[in-house]
Amino acid sequence: MRVEAYERIIIGIDPGTNVMGYGVVGINGKAPVVVAMGVLQLSKYEDHYMRLHRIYERVTGLVNQYLPDEMAIEAPFFGKNVQSMLKLGRAQGVAMAAALNRQIPITEYEPRKIKMAITGNGAASKEQVANMLQRTLGIKQDDMPEFLDATDALAAAMCHFYESSKPIQSHGSKSWKDFIAHHPDKVKK
Amino acid sequence: MRVEAYERIIIGIDPGTNVMGYGVVGINGKAPVVVAMGVLQLSKYEDHYMRLHRIYERVTGLVNQYLPDEMAIEAPFFGKNVQSMLKLGRAQGVAMAAALNRQIPITEYEPRKIKMAITGNGAASKEQVANMLQRTLGIKQDDMPEFLDATDALAAAMCHFYESSKPIQSHGSKSWKDFIAHHPDKVKK
Repeated sequence: MRVEAYERIIIGIDPGTNVMGYGVVGINGKAPVVVAMGVLQLSKYEDHYMRLHRIYERVTGLVNQYLPDEMAIEAPFFGKNVQSMLKLGRAQGVAMAAALNRQIPITEYEPRKIKMAITGNGAASKEQVANMLQRTLGIKQDDMPEFLDATDALAAAMCHFYESSKPIQSHGSKSWKDFIAHHPDKVKK
Repeated sequence: MRVEAYERIIIGIDPGTNVMGYGVVGINGKAPVVVAMGVLQLSKYEDHYMRLHRIYERVTGLVNQYLPDEMAIEAPFFGKNVQSMLKLGRAQGVAMAAALNRQIPITEYEPRKIKMAITGNGAASKEQVANMLQRTLGIKQDDMPEFLDATDALAAAMCHFYESSKPIQSHGSKSWKDFIAHHPDKVKK
């Protein structure tokens, strides 16, 4: 599975301060395949900054290794409390910095939206999402990850693939690339 | 004011998604001086990711230019709502990524703590903080910034200078450097 063989590569990230999931899909025409998926375990690091640094390093490493064209991030819009949202925002921020550093456009998807795109049910369980991805992408049982954060990230990448394969809508600009395309005057030469 | 002339350089950051303030102090012995301060105006960019990218780029640029030994960040622990905290967390995250990328230890200070350190009053106004910094650091009236986000960031750097000049306490580890010093077993060789 060489990176060069794909027309388009999407990296999905499920950022968190305990576990970060990632999934990379390569696309030729309408046939996406899994290029990589896995998790970064962060709970072993007590220090919050160490965790943020590890997220940044890993996402930078993944970006350098797989050269994705786009990044999809699973991003809840609501959380339990302001503390957890601040921490989540930081985890998202360092992951985003790694992508922005390489000019990779980012699109966010709410968990419900991702579940809906993969299974047709916005309230699907993580296991149902994983099972559907396994069938859709033909992942062997032995290759299925131990942690569902990995399949969640893969689901974000697949959600972005489905969404971006829809006919282009004339209004709204959800990604940076769209924004630039629609607002050329905002770009500093 | 050459960077090389200082024993120690602290960069203070006041991250926000509308305006980011920064202040750099150089220290020789017990005499801190202002090396640089300013703001990054972000409200002109409609796109959230563009803002995050600009923060990351500017902090990276400041870090490369002034080679700070430490970063101090003004970080509120509580916010109005989860939405604003998520956005603030992202702004902090990308600023932190720029520092972590250069192995610069980060320390956070609550706004109240910073105001207390600078003026002796945790409820001081931004103007009072700016006035006290102007006197303490001998900043000429012409050099005072238009935006108080700049002096707020400078205040974060000065707060860190005061705090880190206190006798070392044996418990707690607030910075990454402290953490590594106290937990050498956690460092991956």
